[in-house]
Amino acid sequence: MNEEKPVLEVCLSPALLHLYNTKGAIVVIIDIFRATSTITAALHNGARCVIPVASVQDCIAIGERIPDSLTAGERDGKVAEGLQHGNSPLEYPAEFIKNKALVLTTTNGTRLLHMVKDADRIVIGSFLNLTALSNWLLAQNKNVLLGCASWKDKFNLEDTLFAGAVVHRLQHAYEINCDAARAAKHLYNSSGGKNFIEFLKDSSHYRRLSAFGLQHDMEYCVTPDLHPVVPHLAGDEIVISDTGSV
Amino acid sequence: MNEEKPVLEVCLSPALLHLYNTKGAIVVIIDIFRATSTITAALHNGARCVIPVASVQDCIAIGERIPDSLTAGERDGKVAEGLQHGNSPLEYPAEFIKNKALVLTTTNGTRLLHMVKDADRIVIGSFLNLTALSNWLLAQNKNVLLGCASWKDKFNLEDTLFAGAVVHRLQHAYEINCDAARAAKHLYNSSGGKNFIEFLKDSSHYRRLSAFGLQHDMEYCVTPDLHPVVPHLAGDEIVISDTGSV
Repeated sequence: MNEEKPVLEVCLSPALLHLYNTKGAIVVIIDIFRATSTITAALHNGARCVIPVASVQDCIAIGERIPDSLTAGERDGKVAEGLQHGNSPLEYPAEFIKNKALVLTTTNGTRLLHMVKDADRIVIGSFLNLTALSNWLLAQNKNVLLGCASWKDKFNLEDTLFAGAVVHRLQHAYEINCDAARAAKHLYNSSGGKNFIEFLKDSSHYRRLSAFGLQHDMEYCVTPDLHPVVPHLAGDEIVISDTGSV
Repeated sequence: MNEEKPVLEVCLSPALLHLYNTKGAIVVIIDIFRATSTITAALHNGARCVIPVASVQDCIAIGERIPDSLTAGERDGKVAEGLQHGNSPLEYPAEFIKNKALVLTTTNGTRLLHMVKDADRIVIGSFLNLTALSNWLLAQNKNVLLGCASWKDKFNLEDTLFAGAVVHRLQHAYEINCDAARAAKHLYNSSGGKNFIEFLKDSSHYRRLSAFGLQHDMEYCVTPDLHPVVPHLAGDEIVISDTGSV
């Protein structure tokens, strides 16, 4: 038997997405600080869906239309004007978010998610669901593109570090001929595979969000497996099934 | 005295170049396999200039116009039809290239070089001139952008590894708030700072060029300091001064 392995690749910025063939592949959206961490946490805590939208205006409009919904999003570290809540995974405990729809606008993650057009499936990745996501991907036996949301198209360390963590777990089962995947894995190895926050303390995003007092938020976002679900996009909504996998 | 340090950044792909402010900065063009390695070697060996051109057609036309010139360039590992020589640094020893103009067309390096419009200076970087380049940059006290030519806009390991080697040498004297620079440095540290070819043997470009039998070429290209000059762009030509620096 000469079964071909599926292909695993890493895209380091939305500005490079056009270089990858996403048709028929599973695309993992990665925005560690903090969109995909917040989405993972809110859904695991019982939100009935997360609706990612590009602008504050859309967020308000959709929030008004949908019953039992909350609007959320930040600009420059503060709740955006006209919205109700922020972009922290810690703001959405079960008693607060259960059965609600979270209408969320973010700078980078939402944009990348809306750019992917022809994937087999779009799923959400974060340290909070690292093992659940990796195991689910392995079970699919399909090509995978790990898509880093980055920061306004600029390469960032935390999304790539997470991509490296996934490459580390998946590499035995995939064909990898992608230097970005190799570099992500080296980065993950450099971190020692633990104490990610220490590794990220010199990163641009850590510096920026620290200025807003969000150190605790970031520590939470890089803690593996607190929310073992695999959120996926279904129409305009991000959801999980009852069993915690798609 | 509170003297501000100049800024050091790394651009991982020509497709991300628009995100960086190159005005007034020194831009280092990096295309390790093999454009910038060949340019560095040819000039150190006595070529009077290298003229980088985008297409085989331009290469032929300019070669016909300029006395004592050679045309060179490869497509898929072979000398391109209509050109005289290939894209190997080993093809241009002193006895062959001295006082000649090398009209060179390459896939990636040339393109990036032509994309940079408003830099203070465009210079050529390769392992072959690593120390000379680093020392020259340190002496300028200006903002620096290390520009990886990549492979058809896709991130590559060898250009980023070299960028990391430069960051390693420059970091004490520059303000670095660029995750790509941090990642490049981690990559360089992962390599152990030596035996670069072993580190690169799993890279996409090593695999591709190995299929053309170019292992020895690549080993040469990652050998530090064989050609200690700092080539720079002057008009349409890449040149060095008599003293081996710009």
